[in-house]
Amino acid sequence: MKVANLVEISKVEVGYEEIPSISPNEVLIKINAVGVCGSDIHYYKHGHIGKRTVQYPHIQGHECAGTIVKIGSDVTKFSIGDRVAVEPGVPCRICEKCRSGKYNLCDKVIFLSTPPYKGALRQYISHPEDYVFLIPDSLTFEEATLAEPLSVGIHALNRANLKPGMKVLIMGMGPVGLMAVAATSYFNAEEIAVTDIVKHKLEVAKSLGATQTIEVAKQEIAEHYFDLVLETSGAEQALAAAINSLKKGGKLVSIGFPHQQNVTLDLTTMLQKEIDLLTVYRYANTFPLAINILTELKDVIGNIITSTYVLDDISDAMEKACETQLDTIKVIVYPHLPKDGHSL
Amino acid sequence: MKVANLVEISKVEVGYEEIPSISPNEVLIKINAVGVCGSDIHYYKHGHIGKRTVQYPHIQGHECAGTIVKIGSDVTKFSIGDRVAVEPGVPCRICEKCRSGKYNLCDKVIFLSTPPYKGALRQYISHPEDYVFLIPDSLTFEEATLAEPLSVGIHALNRANLKPGMKVLIMGMGPVGLMAVAATSYFNAEEIAVTDIVKHKLEVAKSLGATQTIEVAKQEIAEHYFDLVLETSGAEQALAAAINSLKKGGKLVSIGFPHQQNVTLDLTTMLQKEIDLLTVYRYANTFPLAINILTELKDVIGNIITSTYVLDDISDAMEKACETQLDTIKVIVYPHLPKDGHSL
Amino acid sequence: MKVANLVEISKVEVGYEEIPSISPNEVLIKINAVGVCGSDIHYYKHGHIGKRTVQYPHIQGHECAGTIVKIGSDVTKFSIGDRVAVEPGVPCRICEKCRSGKYNLCDKVIFLSTPPYKGALRQYISHPEDYVFLIPDSLTFEEATLAEPLSVGIHALNRANLKPGMKVLIMGMGPVGLMAVAATSYFNAEEIAVTDIVKHKLEVAKSLGATQTIEVAKQEIAEHYFDLVLETSGAEQALAAAINSLKKGGKLVSIGFPHQQNVTLDLTTMLQKEIDLLTVYRYANTFPLAINILTELKDVIGNIITSTYVLDDISDAMEKACETQLDTIKVIVYPHLPKDGHSL
Amino acid sequence: MKVANLVEISKVEVGYEEIPSISPNEVLIKINAVGVCGSDIHYYKHGHIGKRTVQYPHIQGHECAGTIVKIGSDVTKFSIGDRVAVEPGVPCRICEKCRSGKYNLCDKVIFLSTPPYKGALRQYISHPEDYVFLIPDSLTFEEATLAEPLSVGIHALNRANLKPGMKVLIMGMGPVGLMAVAATSYFNAEEIAVTDIVKHKLEVAKSLGATQTIEVAKQEIAEHYFDLVLETSGAEQALAAAINSLKKGGKLVSIGFPHQQNVTLDLTTMLQKEIDLLTVYRYANTFPLAINILTELKDVIGNIITSTYVLDDISDAMEKACETQLDTIKVIVYPHLPKDGHSL
Repeated sequence: MKVANLVEISKVEVGYEEIPSISPNEVLIKINAVGVCGSDIHYYKHGHIGKRTVQYPHIQGHECAGTIVKIGSDVTKFSIGDRVAVEPGVPCRICEKCRSGKYNLCDKVIFLSTPPYKGALRQYISHPEDYVFLIPDSLTFEEATLAEPLSVGIHALNRANLKPGMKVLIMGMGPVGLMAVAATSYFNAEEIAVTDIVKHKLEVAKSLGATQTIEVAKQEIAEHYFDLVLETSGAEQALAAAINSLKKGGKLVSIGFPHQQNVTLDLTTMLQKEIDLLTVYRYANTFPLAINILTELKDVIGNIITSTYVLDDISDAMEKACETQLDTIKVIVYPHLPKDGHSL
Repeated sequence: MKVANLVEISKVEVGYEEIPSISPNEVLIKINAVGVCGSDIHYYKHGHIGKRTVQYPHIQGHECAGTIVKIGSDVTKFSIGDRVAVEPGVPCRICEKCRSGKYNLCDKVIFLSTPPYKGALRQYISHPEDYVFLIPDSLTFEEATLAEPLSVGIHALNRANLKPGMKVLIMGMGPVGLMAVAATSYFNAEEIAVTDIVKHKLEVAKSLGATQTIEVAKQEIAEHYFDLVLETSGAEQALAAAINSLKKGGKLVSIGFPHQQNVTLDLTTMLQKEIDLLTVYRYANTFPLAINILTELKDVIGNIITSTYVLDDISDAMEKACETQLDTIKVIVYPHLPKDGHSL
Repeated sequence: MKVANLVEISKVEVGYEEIPSISPNEVLIKINAVGVCGSDIHYYKHGHIGKRTVQYPHIQGHECAGTIVKIGSDVTKFSIGDRVAVEPGVPCRICEKCRSGKYNLCDKVIFLSTPPYKGALRQYISHPEDYVFLIPDSLTFEEATLAEPLSVGIHALNRANLKPGMKVLIMGMGPVGLMAVAATSYFNAEEIAVTDIVKHKLEVAKSLGATQTIEVAKQEIAEHYFDLVLETSGAEQALAAAINSLKKGGKLVSIGFPHQQNVTLDLTTMLQKEIDLLTVYRYANTFPLAINILTELKDVIGNIITSTYVLDDISDAMEKACETQLDTIKVIVYPHLPKDGHSL
Repeated sequence: MKVANLVEISKVEVGYEEIPSISPNEVLIKINAVGVCGSDIHYYKHGHIGKRTVQYPHIQGHECAGTIVKIGSDVTKFSIGDRVAVEPGVPCRICEKCRSGKYNLCDKVIFLSTPPYKGALRQYISHPEDYVFLIPDSLTFEEATLAEPLSVGIHALNRANLKPGMKVLIMGMGPVGLMAVAATSYFNAEEIAVTDIVKHKLEVAKSLGATQTIEVAKQEIAEHYFDLVLETSGAEQALAAAINSLKKGGKLVSIGFPHQQNVTLDLTTMLQKEIDLLTVYRYANTFPLAINILTELKDVIGNIITSTYVLDDISDAMEKACETQLDTIKVIVYPHLPKDGHSL
């Protein structure tokens, strides 16, 4: 089968591997679509995230959807031909975190594309059936890949305990921020204000349910107004603006990694307003709801996807995905589509 | 009646005022003991905390206990002679925060000693009966003043949802840190490690229930070990150590104001470990439990009180209270005791 | 001013009283519309609910909206002419329940129409400003009276901690059940099944967001399927069906009072499935959200209101309201409308 | 190896089986002590609980502790010779309940002694290592078996969210009730009142931390006084008394199965006081804390154990365990002790 091998920093090329075998509890999935994530871009450009370092060649990609082509002997949930979305992290199922429902914090998780584990930018993957989810016919594979970034937004809202009636500010309209807008809209927040520097992304946010758009550095954010801020940029100025924008007792949920290890934070104001800073690491127990939300928002969710490529053009795809300062939002790669093909 | 007037920075002198009148829902309290708080010290030395500025002359003190000497016509809970502790902040009772049980965040709270409101370093105060609490005979007035700093610790544990079985680290053994040790011990944490630079304070912490003492800069703190850290010093190094010491999914509760407006915080590690930073601003609905805890810990709680003064010696008392780098923990002032008196 | 006096069981007649005076924190409200509640009907027919007994003459009604015509000297939130909904229960603001945000459980609450307190079936009431809420121009007074029964549904969902993605069954499509449908729809439950014996009420439920209607005794309810059941009928058979219909770990929220003091309950199955039975008594901190929901659902909310009367026809109104087994849902009375008038 | 075979209702005899083999993730445990549980007694006397029916011969017992004598190839946590307590229910680890931390509700759980699964009344069992827990040297095997009934109490307190300062009533001083007293005492409730008809059991409760003992039918229970009631008897009168004894907003946790399928419940009062009825089915994530509590309460925990038997005398042991109306509390069986032996 074809795979996309990252062979050195900023260099990716098509290679070939054996189709993986499956264990009794696994299914073999023909991967029809893969989204390129911000973390993929980071590894592509830097070769590492923090202390996690790529061993070349490495296969990236963890936002994926496809079709089941083979099932293990113990599999009960699926049949061949089922269309599915893949939850990329498979935890150990036995540690204290797994037992208590916080499996996103499992130390032994096997996560597609996180070194040393192979990712989904290849034609087939094997995966345990309990981390695979049926998608409705109405959802395309491209759309289904969005269950992964949307899960981050759902997990953020679960952590913050969002309730109807709350006023929410979401900062940074990359794919995670936009998916957080979709989740917040589905949870029926009273107001959803969004910020970004790129006008096009603000427009997409509006289509997903934002009730107010704020162009960063040009428009002001209301002070002492929001119950909840979701911050996806990791920028210090955004965190400072978030703290000012929150009511007393409000919550700031940090989703985006900062560019440096540390950030400067106005803890004095946080204490005076009793503001909490919650953090979000991946997600747990979110995929069924994510698929429901995508299905309900089907008419607008596609606005997120700005470019598509076949696997043979993976170099172009990765370079396009790096253009986050422009209008590019989400790049999708089709591992099975021929070079000039147009249908799945 | 005698009062202690702060007349300029670092200068306090005895003055005289009329005994306050009371409203129908208020009681008049003869103040038998007042504790000097870290915020009193800050106003004394700097004349302001953030944007809150003292208008001279100003009466300080909000940790107080005494005897009811007069009751308003609508008062139902108390009789003359009742021994009581005073919850110093009286909220508006009508705003959204008050209605929902978070009255510590009420914008219109009248808080003893917070400018422009007078404090308790005087012989009598009037106070609404619902913010006054009966104390048992076994508790002295000095001990009862500790219900206020102890309330901060209880509120921190309520916010963090401490459960038996958790391992807790408490950083900084000033009065608030020590009271947090008492609360954490009462909540039956599995382990309570404490840090400070002053050995004597670590010893007092041990008497209150600490199971491990750590002399800062000399002894190491276990990494990835604690479920909860309560940080009372506001120091950047302490926050950094706290983040390292926490397990994945752990909680860092910030209680102490930092010395500058901003702090540097390792948000990257917080995200990777999904650590939350919760903040604590005063307390709500804590006094009944605080009085229970003080009563149960009666034999050791007095270790907190390191010096006592009569009101005439208020200057000495304030200077003593400033010696927080030495063995001084809590300074108590007796507004009614004669200069050479020894009994209440 | 005109008032509706309940003078004996099942006999109500128009009387006259002085317009009430107001305290500094109160407003005088011209009552434009009053809804007749199930508890009003119960007092009308039986003279008591449990141990609470009517002293004749008695004024009923607590679902009301109107216009502010006079404001007390301390009122800050309102101006004359403001259109408002009234939260009928005013708690003591000082007890432990009030302080902790559970003011619906205050022992000293003064609740419009609950004996011995007068209700809103009169032309003017006085009310403290913090239990009065501005309504938008788009909402009629009739619609605004629904903020009260809708609050019960919101409180039920808050108690049950409804999350998007849940499957909910709501039993009994009286006004409270229908308003619970509206709230559950606004909270974005994944499915909302509803039950009743009256087809018309099921149709109204559909218009408010129900996704499945079940005619009791004719259609079956799915077993082990729902995450949450809201039961508004108080009928034993409904409670039994609720327990069967719930998944393991599900929640049954009881809203409707049973016809007898006691009910028979399948505790064995509840234990085996670890099902909780939560109860709902009135509501707290719900009116702002209730008004938002009514405003958003404006196009369909009027389907609830099945009959309207002027105050002079109060006898007919009460008799109509008793027809709960037929298509009657909510009866509205206009205290200021002339006998043949048609506009507010 | 020797096993205790239940061969028909009320008839149990010693038999012989092969020592079980182990899977790579399992350990082989030499069972040193087994407690007889109320459910064992029920199966012994009736042959079924609800629809779960015994297929004879059947091995009972699920409260057990022992020594590891063999470890599977993938086992990492244990060495041969380790002394351990056994969590008897092994869930599927893959269903929605398991993934979200509520594994006590897993439909596919394999629970020692629940038909058709064999229990622990035999000399050896195999068990996956993640449901086995190391015990300290200071704990005897008999004491360690109590981790199972204690887990029920811990789970009840977790469900009820017990906080220090609460007043708790615990009804029924069988082994589960007594273990709930131990847990409640460890969680530091302000008051712990207990009820039973047997004086000796009330005395044992006192030794475990009860602050008030109430002899049922002879002494009255305070009304509107408790924040939380744990009901372990399943008796209708107890449930009625529980509802009367609770404050407004209180919680009634039902632990004990009723004697019939249904119970009569005063739902009217529950609604008026907004009392919740929570249920408890087994437990999840409790064993580490249970072992800590047993270790801390070591000096008194043995008061629970009223009789001990060797496996050869299993008939006598079961008959003794049936005497729950007398002073018998917990019966322990030693599978490896010779008929006249006295040491493990």
